[in-house]
Amino acid sequence: MSKKIQVGVLGATGMVGQSFVKFLDGHPWFELTWVGASDRSAGKKYSEATSWRLDGSMPERIAGLTVSDCKPGNAPKLVFSAMDAAVATEIERAFAECGHFVVSNSKNHRMESDVPLLVPEINPDHLKLLAVQKKRGWKGAIATNPNCSTVALTMGLAPMKNFGIQTIIATTMQAISGAGYPGVPSMDIMANVIPFIGGEEGKMEIETQKILGTLAVDHIDPLPAKMSAHCNRVPVVDGHTVTVSAALKEKVTLKDLIHAYETYTSVPQQRNLPSAPKKPVLYLHEENRPQPRRDAGRENGMCVTVGRLRHCPVLDYKFVCLGHNTIRGAAGAAVLNAELMYSEGLLD
Amino acid sequence: MSKKIQVGVLGATGMVGQSFVKFLDGHPWFELTWVGASDRSAGKKYSEATSWRLDGSMPERIAGLTVSDCKPGNAPKLVFSAMDAAVATEIERAFAECGHFVVSNSKNHRMESDVPLLVPEINPDHLKLLAVQKKRGWKGAIATNPNCSTVALTMGLAPMKNFGIQTIIATTMQAISGAGYPGVPSMDIMANVIPFIGGEEGKMEIETQKILGTLAVDHIDPLPAKMSAHCNRVPVVDGHTVTVSAALKEKVTLKDLIHAYETYTSVPQQRNLPSAPKKPVLYLHEENRPQPRRDAGRENGMCVTVGRLRHCPVLDYKFVCLGHNTIRGAAGAAVLNAELMYSEGLLD
Amino acid sequence: MSKKIQVGVLGATGMVGQSFVKFLDGHPWFELTWVGASDRSAGKKYSEATSWRLDGSMPERIAGLTVSDCKPGNAPKLVFSAMDAAVATEIERAFAECGHFVVSNSKNHRMESDVPLLVPEINPDHLKLLAVQKKRGWKGAIATNPNCSTVALTMGLAPMKNFGIQTIIATTMQAISGAGYPGVPSMDIMANVIPFIGGEEGKMEIETQKILGTLAVDHIDPLPAKMSAHCNRVPVVDGHTVTVSAALKEKVTLKDLIHAYETYTSVPQQRNLPSAPKKPVLYLHEENRPQPRRDAGRENGMCVTVGRLRHCPVLDYKFVCLGHNTIRGAAGAAVLNAELMYSEGLLD
Amino acid sequence: MSKKIQVGVLGATGMVGQSFVKFLDGHPWFELTWVGASDRSAGKKYSEATSWRLDGSMPERIAGLTVSDCKPGNAPKLVFSAMDAAVATEIERAFAECGHFVVSNSKNHRMESDVPLLVPEINPDHLKLLAVQKKRGWKGAIATNPNCSTVALTMGLAPMKNFGIQTIIATTMQAISGAGYPGVPSMDIMANVIPFIGGEEGKMEIETQKILGTLAVDHIDPLPAKMSAHCNRVPVVDGHTVTVSAALKEKVTLKDLIHAYETYTSVPQQRNLPSAPKKPVLYLHEENRPQPRRDAGRENGMCVTVGRLRHCPVLDYKFVCLGHNTIRGAAGAAVLNAELMYSEGLLD
Repeated sequence: MSKKIQVGVLGATGMVGQSFVKFLDGHPWFELTWVGASDRSAGKKYSEATSWRLDGSMPERIAGLTVSDCKPGNAPKLVFSAMDAAVATEIERAFAECGHFVVSNSKNHRMESDVPLLVPEINPDHLKLLAVQKKRGWKGAIATNPNCSTVALTMGLAPMKNFGIQTIIATTMQAISGAGYPGVPSMDIMANVIPFIGGEEGKMEIETQKILGTLAVDHIDPLPAKMSAHCNRVPVVDGHTVTVSAALKEKVTLKDLIHAYETYTSVPQQRNLPSAPKKPVLYLHEENRPQPRRDAGRENGMCVTVGRLRHCPVLDYKFVCLGHNTIRGAAGAAVLNAELMYSEGLLD
Repeated sequence: MSKKIQVGVLGATGMVGQSFVKFLDGHPWFELTWVGASDRSAGKKYSEATSWRLDGSMPERIAGLTVSDCKPGNAPKLVFSAMDAAVATEIERAFAECGHFVVSNSKNHRMESDVPLLVPEINPDHLKLLAVQKKRGWKGAIATNPNCSTVALTMGLAPMKNFGIQTIIATTMQAISGAGYPGVPSMDIMANVIPFIGGEEGKMEIETQKILGTLAVDHIDPLPAKMSAHCNRVPVVDGHTVTVSAALKEKVTLKDLIHAYETYTSVPQQRNLPSAPKKPVLYLHEENRPQPRRDAGRENGMCVTVGRLRHCPVLDYKFVCLGHNTIRGAAGAAVLNAELMYSEGLLD
Repeated sequence: MSKKIQVGVLGATGMVGQSFVKFLDGHPWFELTWVGASDRSAGKKYSEATSWRLDGSMPERIAGLTVSDCKPGNAPKLVFSAMDAAVATEIERAFAECGHFVVSNSKNHRMESDVPLLVPEINPDHLKLLAVQKKRGWKGAIATNPNCSTVALTMGLAPMKNFGIQTIIATTMQAISGAGYPGVPSMDIMANVIPFIGGEEGKMEIETQKILGTLAVDHIDPLPAKMSAHCNRVPVVDGHTVTVSAALKEKVTLKDLIHAYETYTSVPQQRNLPSAPKKPVLYLHEENRPQPRRDAGRENGMCVTVGRLRHCPVLDYKFVCLGHNTIRGAAGAAVLNAELMYSEGLLD
Repeated sequence: MSKKIQVGVLGATGMVGQSFVKFLDGHPWFELTWVGASDRSAGKKYSEATSWRLDGSMPERIAGLTVSDCKPGNAPKLVFSAMDAAVATEIERAFAECGHFVVSNSKNHRMESDVPLLVPEINPDHLKLLAVQKKRGWKGAIATNPNCSTVALTMGLAPMKNFGIQTIIATTMQAISGAGYPGVPSMDIMANVIPFIGGEEGKMEIETQKILGTLAVDHIDPLPAKMSAHCNRVPVVDGHTVTVSAALKEKVTLKDLIHAYETYTSVPQQRNLPSAPKKPVLYLHEENRPQPRRDAGRENGMCVTVGRLRHCPVLDYKFVCLGHNTIRGAAGAAVLNAELMYSEGLLD
């Protein structure tokens, strides 16, 4: 690639937007040249419009960019959306209509029938839905990535997919960074567990079925599996941990199943996409792993770690999986989606 | 009761032993007059032999007691056991053989066929097993309470018992105090989750079936329900939180089931036992409760709080429950067992 | 006291207001019969107007009270103020003008020359300033308690007062509850230290000098001591810990100084005021105490614990002190002030 | 450098030893080829002898090394010591006697008159003491780095050195990783502060005076400044935060002093040593920085961050500083010392 592709970020000043700015810093294919935010920020320098909440400093080159308002036109063709759900629907559509490729982390379009809900290691073929969006009269398109806890779960389930997943019961222990900033008050979560995250259980249940579902010309047939989620907030900074029990259609021995986990690989690895983890599902053999503080950052936060795969007395197997919620569960997920799109020639 | 019953504590200097000392302080029926510990401590004053780890100060009257070694004889007839599993088997048996009633928090005898594993609100009739122990040639007897996480789970399931529990999947988020002192290194648990507690899942699965089982003359027929546990340690001081999905034999509406939770009461409440919580299962209607830091201490730590009862897409219902692991899950559980035994005339 | 004195709380629905409601529950002298809040809440039941943030449940009797707006008139003569600083100045003055005794936890009037900044164990004579307020044309009066960290520090210094305090350097490690609700975002404080609390250092420095100062007819001459504060937020729920180095005018041996701490008592203890701790300054001899999680709640949160008194290579002595910020540092402080006022016959 | 210098680590299996292994991984000058540990581990593979406690995985090349026992002879000339204080004295001396250069993180030899206590940015000339050690009949030598909290403090004071430091009062808030593994029990530190670290205050006071002292032929004349330390443990994973008040001999304006901080540089920077941070003292202008979770990792954990420099009402200036205790305060400090020694031609 002789010259980098210019990209923009919608909602660049918020915490998810900052994650995009950080994740894109030094990207070999994409160069962030355009940052969009609300009217209040437009016209200011990015450094003035943004209270930087992430570790380390704001990338210097981005600090000097002037914030644009979130209107299509002078933005690059490829834009990442870190927009708040309250405003994402209309703005993302406006961009897609005008010919932009909107690679969105927002929840707004995830469940629309012609919008792919992508996990590149699981359902790269769902990208074909982008073509269906032309029926809307759009020159561009919208692609989405799942909710942060859903990524950890579906990646953790991916090596089981070939054995026919029939039932899933999952309990999450989710990090505070998943709630943004200011997010969870410390008075609520310090040395505590909050056994409730608004809307999260429903999202996990329905998104999982779509991600693991089958492309059917112009829509996705959801995986016909029963799925139940219990979502909890715990005092952890980064990394959503999920305990999972699952029933499978096919018989498989524990040994063979662990082997499937250890050898799992997929399209992003085969194409050597820049943000693809070497091992998308990293199986840990220690009896007490994965652990969020120690394992969420492996492979730059882009792999999902799995451990403790064993028989379940109720369903067939149970295990623990863990994903970095702000990287693999947000900015990194969207960037990997864009890399997949580029590798398919969809961004030309 | 004109005069208090004298009681002793085996293993009184450890952290669970300290919980007994604290819980018995000011008890209306029982007076702690004897503290037993290892040879190393025997002969010392309790205050000298003990590094007090609990909040507040050591009760003054107990501080002056001389520590005995853990041999039957001069100990009171009723002794609570807070002994380490490594030594509890032989010592508890020796006491029972000599005519002591050993009300034990140790795991050693829980699963023996003639030993009751009591939760007074659930299976007070299991006490009849004490008579069976006479076949061992014992003049006394051993009664046990469950593992700390099992208490929270079984109390949380108790109002469902009449509807025929068939399947249980439970995920725990357990407090650090459950591991004693020094217990969990802070380097392991600070801002982290450890998805493993040695031996805990097996204990929860098998103990739950015995507690919810049926008395059959000289043993307990376990509840014929399938049960799977996922056990995790989280950075919480006190209070084990459990998310539960359960399948029931009988049909029951959500409304009727919540009513069963709100009105649940049992023998300890009817007999007004001193340590019995007014509401053994306290149902909280807020959408984000129970929470360990805010709710574990309700009813002096003796009730189990439950919330979020709702339909489960896989099994029938799901909910969250929470119990104070060092009170209702340990010292308080054993003392309530002894109160039940006294109210049955078994301590005469 | 045959009949309780009716009292009100201004700003009763906020977190400090809730602390007053909880602290006054079951008070032997005072009965909370009036709760005032903003227009938005006025007219609602207290239970409807309030999101209860404290442990346990809202006192049942208070839940049914109707919230009034914060205007003098039908409120009881004695009102506690938990008002936000943004509105406290005018409202507290209006109440004082109309004949109410306003016992305030707000910072607004603390440094006014005719308003006492009370710590009943230290400067009960400062109450005489109330009479000076009549020059303002007020029928009532305003009395204040210090900032939460200042209470811990000044109580910790109180036994040194007779030796002539000349210099103070203090570093605080303050609990998150000191910032109210939602207060400190968990993303800021989880496993972290924030070495800054807006305005806190100035307040500690100037309030300490006034509290330890001398009554001079119509104002307080501040203690002519140099004072420097470093204020930090740490991940602790309740309890502000302060490390202190101090220089004294008089020579005193370490032994005699520790004796002064162990025997310290004052007016609230002599008068046996209901909220007075038996030992206002509780000296702990363990080498690693006081600790907020273990010691902040001693004496119902009303004492200040002190430990590690030792020589300082720079100034004369150094030590650690700790106070419960929402009890001794807020609601409990104000109630003790009112008890002192009552015992002086000032509330008649 | 055409060929790397082979190095060893004494005490390589412990937590500090692991930090050395991690820090040396990929070092441009040094290649770790020898790992020494106790008899119990000797002969095993490093991966078998070591429970890896750090984030990420053990470097693969080191995992296969065979552990030697800690005897001089076949070890490389340059060895880093991560030995426990209980055994370090004799072993380090034995190595030095036999011609090894022992660059030690242990406290044992720090205060000996002919052993340099190095902070390369502050006292590189103290290295001349190595020659004095020949009087002991040693062919090699021992160089040491300070205690972890002392590094943060002295680096934070370094830009003030030219103005004549006369008095220092420092309060630390130290991370749990400073206590090793298992270290601090979570029951002690969760949501708590422990205002005591055994021996730490004395070490900080005396080491600071030596580090800032003056080379006098065969020993160091300590800085004639009064120094007082208050040491606390707080629930933070990595990074010791220190609040400091200091009195200076020379007059200097706040503006000029901040300029001295912003422009501070020293020998390691001038020589471009591989582990030297670009800015050894990184001054942060935000009002609430530095913070351990956000700032301890800057410059790979090798710089000390400083903020909030302002007037002190008691001494002259006060500020906050922060250093990464296991990197700049341990392994990284020792490696930088060795780099300094190499750049002086001392390792030939």
